[in-house]
Amino acid sequence: MSAGLFDGVLARGRVRDAVSDHAWLQAMLDVEAALARASAEAGLISVEDAETIAAACGAAHYDPARLGEQAASSGNPAAPLVKALTSRVEGPAAGHVHSGATSQDIVDSAAMLVAHRALGPLLEDLEGAAAAAARLAGEHRATVLPGRTLLQQAVPVTFGLKAAGWLVGLDEAIGRVAEVRAERLAVQLGGAAGTLASLSGRGVDVLSGMARALGLAEPVLPWHTIRTRPAELAGALGEACGVVAKIARDVALMAQTEVGEVAEGAAGGSSTMPHKRNPVAAVSAAACAAQAPGLVATLLGSMAHEHERAVGSWHAEWRPLTELLRSAGSAAAWLHTCLEELEVDADAMRANLDLTHGLLLAERVSTELAPELGRLAAHEAVERAAAAATSVEGGFAAALGEQPEIHGRIPEERLAELLDPAGYLGSADVLIDRALRAHDARKERA
Amino acid sequence: MSAGLFDGVLARGRVRDAVSDHAWLQAMLDVEAALARASAEAGLISVEDAETIAAACGAAHYDPARLGEQAASSGNPAAPLVKALTSRVEGPAAGHVHSGATSQDIVDSAAMLVAHRALGPLLEDLEGAAAAAARLAGEHRATVLPGRTLLQQAVPVTFGLKAAGWLVGLDEAIGRVAEVRAERLAVQLGGAAGTLASLSGRGVDVLSGMARALGLAEPVLPWHTIRTRPAELAGALGEACGVVAKIARDVALMAQTEVGEVAEGAAGGSSTMPHKRNPVAAVSAAACAAQAPGLVATLLGSMAHEHERAVGSWHAEWRPLTELLRSAGSAAAWLHTCLEELEVDADAMRANLDLTHGLLLAERVSTELAPELGRLAAHEAVERAAAAATSVEGGFAAALGEQPEIHGRIPEERLAELLDPAGYLGSADVLIDRALRAHDARKERA
Amino acid sequence: MSAGLFDGVLARGRVRDAVSDHAWLQAMLDVEAALARASAEAGLISVEDAETIAAACGAAHYDPARLGEQAASSGNPAAPLVKALTSRVEGPAAGHVHSGATSQDIVDSAAMLVAHRALGPLLEDLEGAAAAAARLAGEHRATVLPGRTLLQQAVPVTFGLKAAGWLVGLDEAIGRVAEVRAERLAVQLGGAAGTLASLSGRGVDVLSGMARALGLAEPVLPWHTIRTRPAELAGALGEACGVVAKIARDVALMAQTEVGEVAEGAAGGSSTMPHKRNPVAAVSAAACAAQAPGLVATLLGSMAHEHERAVGSWHAEWRPLTELLRSAGSAAAWLHTCLEELEVDADAMRANLDLTHGLLLAERVSTELAPELGRLAAHEAVERAAAAATSVEGGFAAALGEQPEIHGRIPEERLAELLDPAGYLGSADVLIDRALRAHDARKERA
Amino acid sequence: MSAGLFDGVLARGRVRDAVSDHAWLQAMLDVEAALARASAEAGLISVEDAETIAAACGAAHYDPARLGEQAASSGNPAAPLVKALTSRVEGPAAGHVHSGATSQDIVDSAAMLVAHRALGPLLEDLEGAAAAAARLAGEHRATVLPGRTLLQQAVPVTFGLKAAGWLVGLDEAIGRVAEVRAERLAVQLGGAAGTLASLSGRGVDVLSGMARALGLAEPVLPWHTIRTRPAELAGALGEACGVVAKIARDVALMAQTEVGEVAEGAAGGSSTMPHKRNPVAAVSAAACAAQAPGLVATLLGSMAHEHERAVGSWHAEWRPLTELLRSAGSAAAWLHTCLEELEVDADAMRANLDLTHGLLLAERVSTELAPELGRLAAHEAVERAAAAATSVEGGFAAALGEQPEIHGRIPEERLAELLDPAGYLGSADVLIDRALRAHDARKERA
Repeated sequence: MSAGLFDGVLARGRVRDAVSDHAWLQAMLDVEAALARASAEAGLISVEDAETIAAACGAAHYDPARLGEQAASSGNPAAPLVKALTSRVEGPAAGHVHSGATSQDIVDSAAMLVAHRALGPLLEDLEGAAAAAARLAGEHRATVLPGRTLLQQAVPVTFGLKAAGWLVGLDEAIGRVAEVRAERLAVQLGGAAGTLASLSGRGVDVLSGMARALGLAEPVLPWHTIRTRPAELAGALGEACGVVAKIARDVALMAQTEVGEVAEGAAGGSSTMPHKRNPVAAVSAAACAAQAPGLVATLLGSMAHEHERAVGSWHAEWRPLTELLRSAGSAAAWLHTCLEELEVDADAMRANLDLTHGLLLAERVSTELAPELGRLAAHEAVERAAAAATSVEGGFAAALGEQPEIHGRIPEERLAELLDPAGYLGSADVLIDRALRAHDARKERA
Repeated sequence: MSAGLFDGVLARGRVRDAVSDHAWLQAMLDVEAALARASAEAGLISVEDAETIAAACGAAHYDPARLGEQAASSGNPAAPLVKALTSRVEGPAAGHVHSGATSQDIVDSAAMLVAHRALGPLLEDLEGAAAAAARLAGEHRATVLPGRTLLQQAVPVTFGLKAAGWLVGLDEAIGRVAEVRAERLAVQLGGAAGTLASLSGRGVDVLSGMARALGLAEPVLPWHTIRTRPAELAGALGEACGVVAKIARDVALMAQTEVGEVAEGAAGGSSTMPHKRNPVAAVSAAACAAQAPGLVATLLGSMAHEHERAVGSWHAEWRPLTELLRSAGSAAAWLHTCLEELEVDADAMRANLDLTHGLLLAERVSTELAPELGRLAAHEAVERAAAAATSVEGGFAAALGEQPEIHGRIPEERLAELLDPAGYLGSADVLIDRALRAHDARKERA
Repeated sequence: MSAGLFDGVLARGRVRDAVSDHAWLQAMLDVEAALARASAEAGLISVEDAETIAAACGAAHYDPARLGEQAASSGNPAAPLVKALTSRVEGPAAGHVHSGATSQDIVDSAAMLVAHRALGPLLEDLEGAAAAAARLAGEHRATVLPGRTLLQQAVPVTFGLKAAGWLVGLDEAIGRVAEVRAERLAVQLGGAAGTLASLSGRGVDVLSGMARALGLAEPVLPWHTIRTRPAELAGALGEACGVVAKIARDVALMAQTEVGEVAEGAAGGSSTMPHKRNPVAAVSAAACAAQAPGLVATLLGSMAHEHERAVGSWHAEWRPLTELLRSAGSAAAWLHTCLEELEVDADAMRANLDLTHGLLLAERVSTELAPELGRLAAHEAVERAAAAATSVEGGFAAALGEQPEIHGRIPEERLAELLDPAGYLGSADVLIDRALRAHDARKERA
Repeated sequence: MSAGLFDGVLARGRVRDAVSDHAWLQAMLDVEAALARASAEAGLISVEDAETIAAACGAAHYDPARLGEQAASSGNPAAPLVKALTSRVEGPAAGHVHSGATSQDIVDSAAMLVAHRALGPLLEDLEGAAAAAARLAGEHRATVLPGRTLLQQAVPVTFGLKAAGWLVGLDEAIGRVAEVRAERLAVQLGGAAGTLASLSGRGVDVLSGMARALGLAEPVLPWHTIRTRPAELAGALGEACGVVAKIARDVALMAQTEVGEVAEGAAGGSSTMPHKRNPVAAVSAAACAAQAPGLVATLLGSMAHEHERAVGSWHAEWRPLTELLRSAGSAAAWLHTCLEELEVDADAMRANLDLTHGLLLAERVSTELAPELGRLAAHEAVERAAAAATSVEGGFAAALGEQPEIHGRIPEERLAELLDPAGYLGSADVLIDRALRAHDARKERA
């Protein structure tokens, strides 16, 4: 991605800085510092040397662009960084820089650290969106609108239930992302080929020490060629993006000029059409979320690392991992904005419901008649009435009466009752409560 | 996929039947039966009617191909199945078939059931592969071979550690698949638009009852348009396939004619080359596993379901979900075969290690010299010796002596010790123990 | 995919049989027959032997399911087929079955043949859809409806222009698919490792002869591990599916209850909602088309075939290639149905245009004022009027008059003219003509 | 992707700058300038105004990062750029900036321009790689090495033929990319909704003029929501990356320590292992190429643009298009380096061929015996001999003699001849000539 020109849309919120070059560089240096300190704890080097090394581990001392260029000859940015860091460290401590580690240890651990840090704002934005969805679910329990299947009005639902569905999706995505963050982002240390051979038998202690120092999990084994961790991270982010995409799609559809049920609080203008109120946040959220499937596929498709270091599949992870964090974080940030400021037009929802003059209650009438007529016969009779409704004066109610099987079976008052959408909402309220309780329960656990 | 011609390779083991047309059909019927019984439990219909319906729910009574054709007009196979089932049910019970449900409820619940059933053999095959990896890890603790990074020999490792790495990958994949199977495969029941409106306020009870009857989880809300469940299933299967692909790649590389470290017990012949011993199981495992990334992407890319039922994204899930289960299950079955019968040639491993006459211990010599020379200077001196090794009589050992910085610093005996691969295996043994303990612990938890 | 249950939706039209097991089997046998005849032409075997072999090459003689099972041991279905074919051929001709070829030659050539045959109905369906789009473009030149950007009404367009856009997309997709079919589907013959070594120096002649016999292109070189051909086929089908997806999306959006601009001629019913008219063809077309990106990715991701035959990437192509042909063919068939029977409601289109009482002409007013006020100032003044329009009596026209910068600058009659949508259609007509001419020109070339 | 840190590996060569922020910005400004000049040609504005606008269209005047931030409110970077450009243009010309265009016109046309420019160095690098492959094909006609299928040695091939295969793949990829570049990269101009409504009936002339000015193709219709062009570009780049991946994989495999047939001229060192000679160029080429399938899938999956401008699918293209150009260009640049400096060790190739003591000629012996024994019987007898070869003194030759069916059928001299790999290369030479001729023919056409 060109670095800035599209960032307003595709790199929104704090995730942008959390996955920047600077963030990666600092993470690699944090790993070198943690390695030095853990080596000191394990008695392999002196505490003074460790602190001398750690003191040189500020990203400001190094130039990412130059390191990037130098990376061409060794094939990764850790190699030139180690050289630069070693030059900067004074005295004998320089001899202990990077000791026991290989380049992949640094880049992999840094990747986990970058991910851990980037998931912070991402989770906050998803939580913000969830909170907004919870509020909408509670406030709009009684706001009826057409339920739509295959984009055709089907039966009435409430906007509260719709928002409760969004909430459950967000809660589940948050739960999974948080679980991966807490349990699956692990430090990597294996040395040249995963045996920790140059750490004098203290390799596992250094591994543990680094994990503690960096706030990452400690793996059972070095995972340099067992890529379950990036895969699970990818899966969780893919899921989160899918939930964002669903909600953004709903918002964009409800914001259509012809539907007009919601509008974004800060809808965007157009360079050519002065009257437009574009749902920019939903559109941008959708665009960011749409990056995920392909990026997840690239990460999953890069899991077959050859032997003790891959011929390309490792290098192939760097870009999609960074992009996926950025895209998912941006999608979450846009959705947060979108839902937090969403303007809901309950009258428009009701008006849309009335467009079909009761046809949406067809299923209900059919259910009412089923015990007497049999389910299929009832269905077919009501289907005929529905087909006739637009050409019959008196609409669906009248058309029902004209069906011989139905005629006389439903008293007029009962029919009026049956055709009232607010009376055909089933368990919507109970379901909203379930969603809100599950939301609260998850937040308490967290 | 054409149904049979490629099945020997791409649909191996019991997963093939577990995702067949018949399996899908039976699952849909099981859902209808569970719906009827749960409705009876909730007092909505009589137990007799429920049992009459359930009695008609045997797949043998229905023709999948014909139902498939009829699906064209309604857009899904549940609609014609309901018709056929209703015709088959005698008496008034017929009026209660499918009552309260919509087509998507049946197909979605059936999808979860098919997945639950297909994951059974899949997990068993992954467990079988893990058991084989655990055995190899234990048996080959002392079998040294070259660790290879970027397909270049790097430092010595043991085949036991390599297998331990495979084991950890398999254990993690199993853990995640089992977790998704137990917790995330949920029944779906929402009725026309997710309100359970035609179940007289007992919808949630029916939902609970169905979950119990089918052995599936009970969702917080109907999840007809919140597709986190297929997404997590996809992610877990994608992860498992990635682990299979890694192991299969390693086996295929070790089985190369020029490497010759392993062979498959039942290696395949060739139609033209009588001497070939093809690693058919590894190759087939890799081919099956390679299906996953694209299928996962399709499932993640289909999460944006519009409103209360999608205009295509729901239908778009059926094929990739089925294919992913089949491909992952087949990949697991092939890997199981591959590892269980793997023939290991420890002599060939050792011979490969000796190909470079000690160069693989270059890192070790470098580490030995680092305290005196400094890490970078030591690295560079050893690098020069390595470069000279092939042209110097006496190889690497002699070339080391010719470097002025090194000359005289390492006594001859110590050098011989340093150049012994078996002495440079770091924490390999400890790591194998960790992997085996983690494996046992997971199995105990399960 | 389970073979039949979902076929009504996901395997529509003649493409279903064109990619069936039987079709694959016959294609493999056609390749064996062509090999025998081309060998006879090249003087390597007798014409009698060739004809004896060819006579045994009817798919009805063989059982795909059994061959499929046997494929497990060798890793591909050609190996057991060759055995079965050899058994069936009587006399000395049996010794010449498959002579000079390897399994991959048979499967690869058959894949191209299956593709060539499946692209026939696929192209016919795309042509049918294009013809329908061309008709709609011509018939609806004067049918105005709102142009919609980001799902917000923007400026008026005509339905004819919309259909012309569909037409251009279809024409381009057809052009590319037809080009790939004619030029890039080539026979494969290389023998064991691509040297044609067992064909006594006549290998290239046999290659040419097979190409002629099968109606496929002759490649420069055997392409067993150079997978540009499946890649280009995949790309062309991915493009075609993308065009189908765009049109299906437009149709589904226009068919929304609240929009009501089109309906499908044979709209589908619902198992629960008797009044529904679901755009089943558009939905199914979208679902089929949605398979393509992931399948294309799998095929592109399988191009790195190792040396002279891949360790998995070749086998990995069979399923996605078959699925992609089936999905693309089905998508085309559904779209053909959808467009051919599309019912267009010009009054609804006009009514939707009037929903915003002239706001859609905001850009036009802005353009009118630009010369006097400057483009940005005009834009901003009109934007303010648009924002006020809903709260001002007299709507947008009145609100314009209330803006000080605008007041008095546009005479009333001119304003009425400016706010007439039919007068603001720019080059719509000219563009429709260009699309129709390009369509005719392509058909003449074909 | 973080902008610099990984660029040494993932953004190699001139393509890096060709897709930078600056390049995108300049392309957008070039489009605005072309629009102004084409409007002047069409008589809509004065030449002076057009030149005043064009004079302000230097990227150096604008700050991409700031424009990027401002893009957040409108949802794309063209909107703030038009504002900034308008401010910079003095006098009445300011009123004509961007006149008749919408934001998408600018971004889409710029995307095509960026692609056109980035494909320049990409094609040169592919040509460079092809030239190297052609040289290798010619020089190594007589260099025999084992052909390998499923990574098992199969029959002899020549390195010249292997390189000829690479050459054909590169030639085909170049041909397709060049075709897309010349014919499918088109200017976009449609105005607000594709009618060119604010261009006073001269829209098509302006469209033509812009195409000429920018060196892009003229489309039949504005293609703002018909995304065949990005799709074909994606397909061509995906194909090119697949070819790069194949060659890189072959090189990495041949460079294995145990195989040793090739080495990279500038092989990379390791931070920990002084003796390593890593095939960095092949590994990096593979890593860059591995990005393509997922990115192509994202672009194909974004083709369903709603109505006259998409709710997200348009925005979703920007990142993957840029990344795909960068990745493909980098992959080509790395491959160019890799092949140009490839060191070939013919002796190692020959030594590998001798590892199996004649087993690679098994097919040949089998073919020799077929006329007498029948093809299957001959195959089986030779298969038994091959199986016995390693345990029989005298190896394969002796083992053949021990098979009763074979014994005495082949005179000793003839057997020696049959077991000489150089005598079993089939049409390798003829095929190399075909590849070289096709290469020359393509270059002449270009």
